[in-house]
Amino acid sequence: MPPFASTRNKSKVSLQRVNITSNAIQKTVRFSVVNCSLKINHAQPALNDEIRVPSVIDGPVFQQNVSVRSFEIDSEYKMSTKAIMNYLQEASLNYAKKLGLTIDPRFGITPGMRKMDLVWVFRGIHIEVDRYPCWGEVVQILHWTCASGRTGVRFDWTINDINTGETLVRASCLAVMMNKNTRKSCKLPEEVKDEIKAYLREDVEPIVEAFKCSCPQIEAMDHIKTGLTPGWNDLDVNYHVNNAKYLDWILESTPDSIRDRHELWKMNFEYRKECLKDDVVQSLSRVVPSNEKNREIEVEHVLRLESGHQVLRARTVWRTNSHSCRGINSMKTIF
Amino acid sequence: MPPFASTRNKSKVSLQRVNITSNAIQKTVRFSVVNCSLKINHAQPALNDEIRVPSVIDGPVFQQNVSVRSFEIDSEYKMSTKAIMNYLQEASLNYAKKLGLTIDPRFGITPGMRKMDLVWVFRGIHIEVDRYPCWGEVVQILHWTCASGRTGVRFDWTINDINTGETLVRASCLAVMMNKNTRKSCKLPEEVKDEIKAYLREDVEPIVEAFKCSCPQIEAMDHIKTGLTPGWNDLDVNYHVNNAKYLDWILESTPDSIRDRHELWKMNFEYRKECLKDDVVQSLSRVVPSNEKNREIEVEHVLRLESGHQVLRARTVWRTNSHSCRGINSMKTIF
Repeated sequence: MPPFASTRNKSKVSLQRVNITSNAIQKTVRFSVVNCSLKINHAQPALNDEIRVPSVIDGPVFQQNVSVRSFEIDSEYKMSTKAIMNYLQEASLNYAKKLGLTIDPRFGITPGMRKMDLVWVFRGIHIEVDRYPCWGEVVQILHWTCASGRTGVRFDWTINDINTGETLVRASCLAVMMNKNTRKSCKLPEEVKDEIKAYLREDVEPIVEAFKCSCPQIEAMDHIKTGLTPGWNDLDVNYHVNNAKYLDWILESTPDSIRDRHELWKMNFEYRKECLKDDVVQSLSRVVPSNEKNREIEVEHVLRLESGHQVLRARTVWRTNSHSCRGINSMKTIF
Repeated sequence: MPPFASTRNKSKVSLQRVNITSNAIQKTVRFSVVNCSLKINHAQPALNDEIRVPSVIDGPVFQQNVSVRSFEIDSEYKMSTKAIMNYLQEASLNYAKKLGLTIDPRFGITPGMRKMDLVWVFRGIHIEVDRYPCWGEVVQILHWTCASGRTGVRFDWTINDINTGETLVRASCLAVMMNKNTRKSCKLPEEVKDEIKAYLREDVEPIVEAFKCSCPQIEAMDHIKTGLTPGWNDLDVNYHVNNAKYLDWILESTPDSIRDRHELWKMNFEYRKECLKDDVVQSLSRVVPSNEKNREIEVEHVLRLESGHQVLRARTVWRTNSHSCRGINSMKTIF
């Protein structure tokens, strides 16, 4: 199946607004997510310039509302893709923390995982953005997790327009267990599975389908940026480069003409190797030739160490800028 | 007067809690800030897991509540100084936006400024952190502005513990007008002063006192990191490096032993020159010798271009880690 050409019926797993009732203070929107019924009280400006940010969850879905900050936007006042990635991870950590499953809430480490020296590692993430939220906009993040085969756990998220229920962003990520001493991944131990079962849903399709990045044609990659090094602030407490930093790096070798005049629509990351403090990284990109007269541009990316070891394979799809948030910044902002 | 040895009576200008009344839903705290009386309804967890984030302002002081995110913290789960700088700037922009003073809210550009091709530039910022907020903590930012001489505007901020009213962070910054064509600064034109007068307070002392960085002894600077370049994401829409990025760069040449075992307590930045997309920056640091047996460490920093032109002079003061937020992360988090 070619990348991004999913034939799956998305509406089967997408969030669907079922019913809206509203009053002066708040709005209640009912969604159905596959077999899970959610009742969500939406954040709405209320009396006295107040804003109500409830987190009423009915079913194993986590909800968090966030306001887009001025330092998280691009030149069109739209939330950056990196900020989106950061908030997805934040929702996962908050979910685990809220359920009280973890000893170390920042990394979702359960007692069983600590005993066996296991940590979570991301294998891959796929994100599709229908509309980028604007500066000052309050959006709703929904997040749920599923068992994925015998070895992994899948994280799914949507980011939604808080007023209309429209889904703006869909994302799906596969995480596996890794032994932090041997650095080898392993299947999900029963003990850990038991610990997190309240957190896992079964038999739910991904909210957005991931695909294999085809084996990259390194020799054809004609946009290259070398000498990229992690800054002190790009490392997490394990002194590994954080996942979202890879996005900065692939953008470093993306041609200016694409980055400046187009919008990142879809992205697929396959994490191949961890990147450490003293690593020096090369970013390579290639625009995939297209015979069609469509406005989509597909770009293939590789991050690799100077030794040649690949750190990340990625594929991005860009479209003509769909909208700007500049015009709507005179709107009343909710602080 | 030696740096950081202010003899000024801080309590005169600090926020003071005057009176607290509370009920099940919310708490009202009265502060007095010099001559300005504020009535603030504090964000408190209420019934149904809701959180109330009001912005009731009585007087020319802006208030914004923010929740510290997982991607804004360090390895001790404490909010990073860079995140603090970002939120200070966000509060300023939101204040200008709220008052409807600006055409371009992201940069605080008034109609008069646009006509005269003027933009704001930061001359310097001074920040003191008494306690770093923790991940998940909701803190309150207060912000006000004053005329400063004939040429500038001073921005002041405090970040406060939302439950106790304790001031955690104090910051003060001087901004001036610059003509964006000639790149020269100029005094505040009367027309612009008229436009922003609702935004300016008079005769208020800085919440924290700035000081001149003494002329740095470049030849004595023995911690050097070269070849620092702005990433694509470090530039604002004018393709200048954003102010907070300079902090990353001065930390690049700060000795590991200080950065890892101490906490940044006070910092003073003097912005000397703008830094552009293709600039290559050197970061130089020197630990200031001290005869005293105190636990404070003072470090002098310079960022300069390869041509030798100085971009930034800075001075930081570090203290032994005052606290960790690790222990309190089992607390109930408000999403």
